[in-house]
Amino acid sequence: MTSTPAQSFDWNALASEFAGIETITEPTQVAKLSLDYYHFSPVLQPLLEDKRGNLVVRPQTEAEVLQVARICVKHKVPLTIRGAGTGNYGQCIPLHGGVILDTTRMNGIRWIKRGKTCVEPGVKLAAFDKQARKIGWEWRMVPSTYRSATIGGFIGGGSGGIGSINYGQLRDRGNLLAVRVVTLEDEPRVIELRGDDVQKVNHAYGTNGIITELEVPLAPAYAWVEVIVIFDNFITAAQFGQALGDADGLVKKLISIHAHPIPTYFSGLKQYLPDGKHGALLTIAESCLEPFQELVREYGGEITYQKSAQDGSKGTSLAEFTWNHTTLHARSIDGTLTYLQTFFFTLERVEKLYDHFGDEVMMHLEFLRVNGQAIPAGLQLVRYTTEERLNEIIRYHEEQGAFIANPHTYILEDGGRKTIDVEQVQFKEQVDPYGLMNPGKMRGWEERE
Amino acid sequence: MTSTPAQSFDWNALASEFAGIETITEPTQVAKLSLDYYHFSPVLQPLLEDKRGNLVVRPQTEAEVLQVARICVKHKVPLTIRGAGTGNYGQCIPLHGGVILDTTRMNGIRWIKRGKTCVEPGVKLAAFDKQARKIGWEWRMVPSTYRSATIGGFIGGGSGGIGSINYGQLRDRGNLLAVRVVTLEDEPRVIELRGDDVQKVNHAYGTNGIITELEVPLAPAYAWVEVIVIFDNFITAAQFGQALGDADGLVKKLISIHAHPIPTYFSGLKQYLPDGKHGALLTIAESCLEPFQELVREYGGEITYQKSAQDGSKGTSLAEFTWNHTTLHARSIDGTLTYLQTFFFTLERVEKLYDHFGDEVMMHLEFLRVNGQAIPAGLQLVRYTTEERLNEIIRYHEEQGAFIANPHTYILEDGGRKTIDVEQVQFKEQVDPYGLMNPGKMRGWEERE
Repeated sequence: MTSTPAQSFDWNALASEFAGIETITEPTQVAKLSLDYYHFSPVLQPLLEDKRGNLVVRPQTEAEVLQVARICVKHKVPLTIRGAGTGNYGQCIPLHGGVILDTTRMNGIRWIKRGKTCVEPGVKLAAFDKQARKIGWEWRMVPSTYRSATIGGFIGGGSGGIGSINYGQLRDRGNLLAVRVVTLEDEPRVIELRGDDVQKVNHAYGTNGIITELEVPLAPAYAWVEVIVIFDNFITAAQFGQALGDADGLVKKLISIHAHPIPTYFSGLKQYLPDGKHGALLTIAESCLEPFQELVREYGGEITYQKSAQDGSKGTSLAEFTWNHTTLHARSIDGTLTYLQTFFFTLERVEKLYDHFGDEVMMHLEFLRVNGQAIPAGLQLVRYTTEERLNEIIRYHEEQGAFIANPHTYILEDGGRKTIDVEQVQFKEQVDPYGLMNPGKMRGWEERE
Repeated sequence: MTSTPAQSFDWNALASEFAGIETITEPTQVAKLSLDYYHFSPVLQPLLEDKRGNLVVRPQTEAEVLQVARICVKHKVPLTIRGAGTGNYGQCIPLHGGVILDTTRMNGIRWIKRGKTCVEPGVKLAAFDKQARKIGWEWRMVPSTYRSATIGGFIGGGSGGIGSINYGQLRDRGNLLAVRVVTLEDEPRVIELRGDDVQKVNHAYGTNGIITELEVPLAPAYAWVEVIVIFDNFITAAQFGQALGDADGLVKKLISIHAHPIPTYFSGLKQYLPDGKHGALLTIAESCLEPFQELVREYGGEITYQKSAQDGSKGTSLAEFTWNHTTLHARSIDGTLTYLQTFFFTLERVEKLYDHFGDEVMMHLEFLRVNGQAIPAGLQLVRYTTEERLNEIIRYHEEQGAFIANPHTYILEDGGRKTIDVEQVQFKEQVDPYGLMNPGKMRGWEERE
C-alpha cells in the first residue's frame, strides 16, 4: 500500500517551497487539473470522480523538475504527472492526492532533423506538426485528441492512433528513440534511456520517472486528403478497409470504419453520411487519389466527401471523428454509451461479433499495423446497462479470440498489457524507491510491497 | 505467326525515311542495341544470341515517335522498344528483326511534385533520383541496375526491386499513375491511360504501344544508410530479415539475405563478409539506426559495415550487390552459374528448400511486400548442369508451394504471370492490329492468330 499524506499535511507550506515555480492551489483549477476523460467509462466514473491532487506545479525547465522531485521526496508526498489530461482511463488522475506536475509549460522543441525530433514533454502534438511540416515531416502517429494532447502524455498514457496503419503502436521498437527522466531518489538525478531501454518508461503512466525530454522519430509529411466513403453493407466496408490497409501502393494514414448507426452521431458530417449507410473515414495521400478511387469502385463504395490537402486546416477535421473521438461524439448525443478497445485480428472475427451483438455493440473499426500486418482493431460503442453485462461482453470477445485492451480500469497492467512488465517495475524500484509516483496504478509495484 | 520482313527488304531506304531522327545502321552498334542480359540464362543464351534488329532509331519527341510508328506500319516492319537493355530475359531482344526504338534520347522530366512525377520513358533512374532528392522525393522502387536503367524499361520489363519492401511491386495498384502511348494503327495516335487502365501496358514488354510519357508516384527520400550484418546461421539471418520486414517502427528500403557461399562472390565486400558467414545487405533510414541495432542484437548478428547517408554516393553501393546484381557478381567469378526468381511466401518453405538443395541452389533472399505482408522472395543462384535438371529444380519448388517467376523464357506469360492477360491482348488488338510490336513475346497474341 502506498501511504496517503496525513489529512493534517500543510499543503500551503509545501506550496511555498516551490518558490519560483508556477503553483496552483485554487480548488476549482486543481480539480480540473486532477481529472481526464475517465467518464467515458461508467465503471471508472464512481471510482475516480472525487479524486483530487492537493496542488499543481508547472515547471518550465528540467532544473525546476529536479526541484519538484527533491521536495516531493523530502516530504514523501505523491507526485502525479499530466500532460493535457486527454486520457480515458484515469492514467493521470491522482488516487492518493499530492502534487500534480503539469508538463504543459515545458513545450520547447530542441531540434527537428530529417526523420526525428527532440522535444520537451509538454509540446502539443498539433502545434508541433505545424512546425515540422514546414520542413516536410510530422509525427508518425497521433491520437484523435491531437489538437490539445502533449507528446509526453501520449507516450506516457497513449498507445497509437492516426498513423498506426503505417508505423504500428508507440510500443513498437523504433517509435520512441530516447527519453530523459528525472528520478525520485533521495537525491533526484537525470537518467537518459536510449534503444530498447526506453521501454522502461514507455506507456508506464508516469509511475517511474518524470520525462523531461524525448527523442521521437518522424514520418514524411505527405499532402493528405480526407475522404468519406459510404457503403450499403458493413462487411463490405470492413473488407474495403482491409484491402486499403493491404494495398502497398496506396499511401494512407487513417482507415476508420463505422457501422450504422454510428454515423448518425456525427452531427457535423450528416450531409456526407446518409442514414442507413456505413461510413469509412479516411486519410489518403493526395498523390494516390486516382488509384484509390479505383479501389473504392472495386468495392462498390461511394465517395461523398473529400477535403484537399490545401484546405487541411480549414473546417472540420475527419480525424476528430475517429479513434476515441467517435466515442466523444456519440456520448455527446447519448451519455449512456461507453466503449471497448479491441484487437479483432481478422475480418471473420469482426463479422462474427458484429452479427452476435447487433445494436448493443456498435462496430467501429480502426485498422493498424501489428507485426507488419494491417489488422482490424476497434473502439466499439457499447449500449451500457450494467458492469456485469459489460464484463460478459468483454469475456465473450475474449472467448472468440479477440484481445480486449480494457478501458474500464485505471490499473496499468489490467488495460492493454495484461502482464506485469518486470522491467518497468524494476526501473521503478530504482528511480522511485518510495513509490511516490502516480501511486496505485502499477499492479506489479503494489503487489510487490 | 508474325511475319519477318523479307530478306530483300531495303533497310537503307527505310532508314532514309527516318529523316531528322537519329538512326543507327552500323552493325556492331545495332547488335549491341539488340541485346540485353539474356545470357544470365543458359537456356535463353542459344535462343537469343543471334537475334538482331535491322536498324535503331532514337526519337527525341513524341512527334518523332509518331513518325517512327507511321513508317513501321506503312512497311509492316517489326518494332521493338528498348530502354537501357538491362533486362534479363530478352524482353527487348527483337526475335524477328526490324526497327529498334531506343528511348534513351527521350529523357525529359516534365515535373516533380509532392509524391509524384511526370517523365519521359528514357529518364535514367539514378539520374532522376539525384534531381528528386533535392526536394525530398525519390522513386518508390528501383532495380539493382538503377544507374543505367530507364523508367520506361523498368515499367515495360521490370517488376520490383529496392523499395519493394515498402511499396510492393510495380504491378500493384498505385505504383504507376498514368502513361501516354503511341499506337501502331494505320494512323498512329496518342492514347492516355490512367487509373487501372495503366495495367493494359504495365509490364507488357512493349508489345502494345510505345510509352512516351509516364506519371509515377514517388516515395519520401529518407537519409538512407547502407549496412552489412553477418550471421553464423543462415536461418537466423532469414528470420532476422523477416523480423526487420515486419518491424513497423523501423524504416527500411532493402532487405537482402545471402547464404554462404554467395558472399564469397562479392570481391568488393570481402573484408565485411568473413568466410563461412551469411550476410544481410540492408538499407535503413538513418533516423532508425539505434533501434535497428537492438534488432541486430536480438538476433545475434554483427554489423560489419555501415555507410552513412552523406557518403551515399561515394564508393561501393550495397544495392549493386543485391537483386539480380547478385547473379551478375557471382557469374563474373563463375560463368556456369544461373538463377531463379522465387516467391517462397514463408520462412518454413525457405528452410525446407535450403536444406533440400544444399549447395546446388544457393539461397539469396529478397524481402518484399505482397498484399500488405513482408514475404521472403529470392533470386537463388543455381549451379547449372542441364536444362532438364533446371526444370526439375523449378518443378520441385512449385511442388513445395513456392511460386517461380521463370527467368528462362522470353515469353511474357511464361515468366511471372503464368496466365494470359486478356486485357493486354485486347489492348494490343486495338493499338497494334498488325502485330508489329516486339513480335513473338506475347503468347496470348501469338496463339490468337
